Amino acid sequence: MDVFKEGDDVLLVSSRGKRRIVKIQGERIHTHKGYLVTSDIIGKNPGIIVRTHVGEEMLALRPSIADYIPKLTRRTQVIYPKDIGYVVLSLGVSSGSMVLEAGTGSGAATMVIASLVKPNGRVFSCDINEESIEIARRNLERVGLTNYVELIHGDIKSIDFKVLFDAAIIDIPDPWNTLRKIVGFLKTSARICIVVPTMNQLEKVYRAMLEANIAHLETVEIMLRRIRPFEGRVRPESIMIGHTAYLMIGAKIIRENI
Amino acid sequence: MDVFKEGDDVLLVSSRGKRRIVKIQGERIHTHKGYLVTSDIIGKNPGIIVRTHVGEEMLALRPSIADYIPKLTRRTQVIYPKDIGYVVLSLGVSSGSMVLEAGTGSGAATMVIASLVKPNGRVFSCDINEESIEIARRNLERVGLTNYVELIHGDIKSIDFKVLFDAAIIDIPDPWNTLRKIVGFLKTSARICIVVPTMNQLEKVYRAMLEANIAHLETVEIMLRRIRPFEGRVRPESIMIGHTAYLMIGAKIIRENI
Amino acid sequence: MDVFKEGDDVLLVSSRGKRRIVKIQGERIHTHKGYLVTSDIIGKNPGIIVRTHVGEEMLALRPSIADYIPKLTRRTQVIYPKDIGYVVLSLGVSSGSMVLEAGTGSGAATMVIASLVKPNGRVFSCDINEESIEIARRNLERVGLTNYVELIHGDIKSIDFKVLFDAAIIDIPDPWNTLRKIVGFLKTSARICIVVPTMNQLEKVYRAMLEANIAHLETVEIMLRRIRPFEGRVRPESIMIGHTAYLMIGAKIIRENI
Amino acid sequence: MDVFKEGDDVLLVSSRGKRRIVKIQGERIHTHKGYLVTSDIIGKNPGIIVRTHVGEEMLALRPSIADYIPKLTRRTQVIYPKDIGYVVLSLGVSSGSMVLEAGTGSGAATMVIASLVKPNGRVFSCDINEESIEIARRNLERVGLTNYVELIHGDIKSIDFKVLFDAAIIDIPDPWNTLRKIVGFLKTSARICIVVPTMNQLEKVYRAMLEANIAHLETVEIMLRRIRPFEGRVRPESIMIGHTAYLMIGAKIIRENI
Repeated sequence: MDVFKEGDDVLLVSSRGKRRIVKIQGERIHTHKGYLVTSDIIGKNPGIIVRTHVGEEMLALRPSIADYIPKLTRRTQVIYPKDIGYVVLSLGVSSGSMVLEAGTGSGAATMVIASLVKPNGRVFSCDINEESIEIARRNLERVGLTNYVELIHGDIKSIDFKVLFDAAIIDIPDPWNTLRKIVGFLKTSARICIVVPTMNQLEKVYRAMLEANIAHLETVEIMLRRIRPFEGRVRPESIMIGHTAYLMIGAKIIRENI
Repeated sequence: MDVFKEGDDVLLVSSRGKRRIVKIQGERIHTHKGYLVTSDIIGKNPGIIVRTHVGEEMLALRPSIADYIPKLTRRTQVIYPKDIGYVVLSLGVSSGSMVLEAGTGSGAATMVIASLVKPNGRVFSCDINEESIEIARRNLERVGLTNYVELIHGDIKSIDFKVLFDAAIIDIPDPWNTLRKIVGFLKTSARICIVVPTMNQLEKVYRAMLEANIAHLETVEIMLRRIRPFEGRVRPESIMIGHTAYLMIGAKIIRENI
Repeated sequence: MDVFKEGDDVLLVSSRGKRRIVKIQGERIHTHKGYLVTSDIIGKNPGIIVRTHVGEEMLALRPSIADYIPKLTRRTQVIYPKDIGYVVLSLGVSSGSMVLEAGTGSGAATMVIASLVKPNGRVFSCDINEESIEIARRNLERVGLTNYVELIHGDIKSIDFKVLFDAAIIDIPDPWNTLRKIVGFLKTSARICIVVPTMNQLEKVYRAMLEANIAHLETVEIMLRRIRPFEGRVRPESIMIGHTAYLMIGAKIIRENI
Repeated sequence: MDVFKEGDDVLLVSSRGKRRIVKIQGERIHTHKGYLVTSDIIGKNPGIIVRTHVGEEMLALRPSIADYIPKLTRRTQVIYPKDIGYVVLSLGVSSGSMVLEAGTGSGAATMVIASLVKPNGRVFSCDINEESIEIARRNLERVGLTNYVELIHGDIKSIDFKVLFDAAIIDIPDPWNTLRKIVGFLKTSARICIVVPTMNQLEKVYRAMLEANIAHLETVEIMLRRIRPFEGRVRPESIMIGHTAYLMIGAKIIRENI
C-alpha cells in the first residue's frame, strides 16, 4: 500500500482550494494557515486529511506531473496543461518515443514528455540559456525523471545528435532560423509542433514549415474554461485565460521523389 | 530505417487535406482520386509522396494514435483529442499506470491510454454494450495495442477487480449510480475523470463526486479553434466545434480520520 | 462646433488607458496623476489632450453611453455591452419603440435602450428594490435620458401597464413566476429577452417561455476577447471574461387558432 | 392593433425552425412544405400560426431588422448581428446620429444603423461597387428605411461630405489608404470602427489608426455560441461560427496642442 515517506513531495490543498507542493522533511511543514507536523503525514496514505496546529484542514495528495506545472520555478512563460496534452497526443508521444525539445524553458513540457516516454524512451532538451537548464534540472530531479532526459545547454544551431527522433517540440523565439536543422534530426513521417505565441509569427512559421518539408499541417488554439458546478448555480467562471499560444503541428515528408 | 510493410496501415493525405487510413494489402489501394499501386508504397519510408493512376499526389504517412481517432468505427460519440490530452495529463497517466475505464465506447480513449501506459501498465475497460466491446477490440488490434488492454463486457455495477487503479475515466450515461463502486477500486489519491455531456448533469455528478470521497475537483470545457495560417490572410476557421463534453476531475481522499 | 461646457461629463483617458468619467465643475478635477484645471477644458473641443499639474497627459473625450456602463454606480451585476448590443438588435429596438424592462438594476440596459428609442419611444423599467430605482434615476440623469424612461418601483407581479410593448427585457431572479403576466403586456410578434445567469435556470426558463406562448426561440452566450494589436506582437489578451450570462430570446405568438 | 397587410413582409418559421421572409402578395405563398393562402394572413395579427395546404404549421411573425440580416441578397460577406450590436453601442449610435459608412456591402449594417438613427439622423454609405449599391438600395427599400440613408456609389477617396459625422464604420479591403480622409469628416471625439477580417491586417490598421489621430483604441473579437436548452439535455450546440472579423474601435483626438 502506498504511503508518504520522508523526502516525498506532498500536494497540500486547503479547504478553499489553495494548492502548494512541499517536501516532507524536518519536524514541521509551514503553511499560510499554521504548521503541519510531518509525523502526522509520514507513513500515511496519500489522500488523508491532516490538520495544522490551528485546526485548519488540508488534503494531503500525491502530486501528479500536471500538479507541478503551475508551481514550477521558471524564467519564462510555462506551457499550459491544455496545450501540452494536445501536443503529446498530436505528436504521437508514447512509451519508448525519442523526443527532441528545442527550448527547455522551465522543463514543464520536458517532465510531461519524460513521464510518458519512460522507461525506454528519452527526451533530448536543449536551451541557449544556462539558467533555464539549471532550473529544468532541479525541476526534473524533484519529480524523479532525470534518467529519461538529456539536458543540453547550447544553441540548437550548433548541436548535433546521433539519434533520429520520433517527434519534436519547438518553443524558441525564432523557430524559422533552425527548423531545417531540427527537421534533419527527425525520422520521416515524424511529427513536429511549434509553439507560436503571437499572430504575427503564424504565417512566418507556416512558410518555414513548408520550406522545411513539413506537411499535413494543423494550427490550433486551445481555450479552457473552468465551470463552477455548485448546486443550483452552475455556471462558467467569470474570469478565464484568454490566450497562451498557438500550436502548429505537422509531419516530416520526403520531397525527393517529386 | 523505418519502411512500410505489407499489412501496415498508411495514412493517406490528399493535396486538399482529405485524410484516410488504409491497410497496405492486395495490389491496389483505391482512393476517391484513383488507385495507388501497393508496390509503390511497400519498402518505402513513411513520409513519401505517391501518385494515384490518374496522377493525384498523396502523402503516405505512418498514422499516429491521434490520427485514428476521427476514423474509428464507432457506435457512440467518440472523445476528442483536445479532451483526451487534457484528461491523461490531469489523471497523471504515464508508462506503467493501471487505469480503469468505465464506458469503452469505440475504444478511442482506450487506445490513447494504452499507448501511454505500455509496456508495463494496463487499461481495464468495460462496457455494457457487447457491440462496443467488439468494435473496440478491432480498433485496438488495428493499432497493435491489445496486449495492454483488458476489455470486459458487462455492467460495471457487477464487475470486480483484483487490482487497485492509479486512475479512472468514466464515460457512461449514469455515473452517479456506479461512482462509489468505481472509487472503491482506486488507490487513495488516485485521480478520476468523468466525461459529462450536458449542463444538467454537472451538479448531479458534482454531488456524486463529493459523496464518493472525491475532492480537489476541477470542472472544465476545452474549446479548440483551428487557424488558417495562409500568407497574407491568417485567420481562424469560419466553423468550429462548439461543444463536445465537460470534464470533471478529482482525487480520491480518505474521510475516516475526520 | 461641439465644445465642453461647465457641468458636462468628460471621459478622461490616461496614457496607460485608465478611464474615468467626471463632471466638469469647480476649479480643479483631481485624478490619480495630479489635477486638471477645469478652465483648460471648458470651451475646448472634445478630443483634446490636456495635462495635469504634474505634466501627465490625459485624453478628454465626450463619453458615449457604452463608456458609462463599466463606471455606473450599482447594486447588482451590470449587463455587459457585448450582451446589450446583441439584445437590442434581436429585440428590434429602434427609435420609437416602446420597451418594457423587468429588473432595472443599475439602469445600464435602461440607458442604452432609452438612447435608441428616443425621442418618441419610451422604456418602462421596474424593479422591486427601491435603491436600484434611485441609482438608476441618478445614472439616467447623468446622461440626460430621464425623459424617455418611466422608472417604477414595485413588483412586476402587481404592476399594470396601459400600453402594449414592442419588446421586453427581463433580468430578474425568478422570470418563470412573472413571464405570463409580462407577455400579456406585449404586442403579438413582439420580441422578449430573458437574461439567464446560470446553467440550471436554462431549462426552467425555456419551459416557461413555451408555456407563455413565446416561440422562435434562440439561446446564446456571447464571449468577447480583447486583442493586443501592438506591432510585431499581435495577440489576444491573456485574461478574458469567461462568463456573464446566457440570453434567451423569442417572439410572442398567438395560440388560440390551433 | 397591428395586422398584416398586402405587400408586407412576413417571417415564416417552420416547426423545425427553418426561417424565410416573403412578401404577402398574390393568392398563395409557396414554401418548402406546401403553399399558404395569403388571405389566411392578411388582416391577422403577427404571431399567428398558419397552415400550408398540406397541413404544415408555420409561425407568421413581423420580421425585425436582425431577422433580415442572414436573408439579405449579397455580394460579399455580411456583418453578423453579434458584431453590429457591439459596434453600434461602442460607436454611441442613437436616434439623431449622423453616421458615415465606408463599404456598404449588402447594406446589413446600413439598415441596422438607419433603424437606430431615424427619424432625424442619417447614414451616408458609400461603396466602390455599383452592384453593392443597388443590392443595398433594394434591401433598404424592403425594410422601409431608404429615407434615412444616402447611398453613394464611388471611391471614398474621391468623395466629399458637407456634414461632420458623429461616428463611422469602415468595412473596406484597404482602410489604411483612406483612413485620414475619413477621419477628416468626423467631429472630434467621434468614434470609429474598422472591421478587420484577418490577423495580418491588425497591426497595419492599428498603426494607421494612431497615425490618423485615433486613440482610446479597443480591439475585440466576439464569439457567439448557441445553446440547446431542451429539457434534461441542456448543452451548447455542436457546431458554432469560429470567426467573422475583428473589430477595432477608437475615438478621434486633436493633436495640435501637443
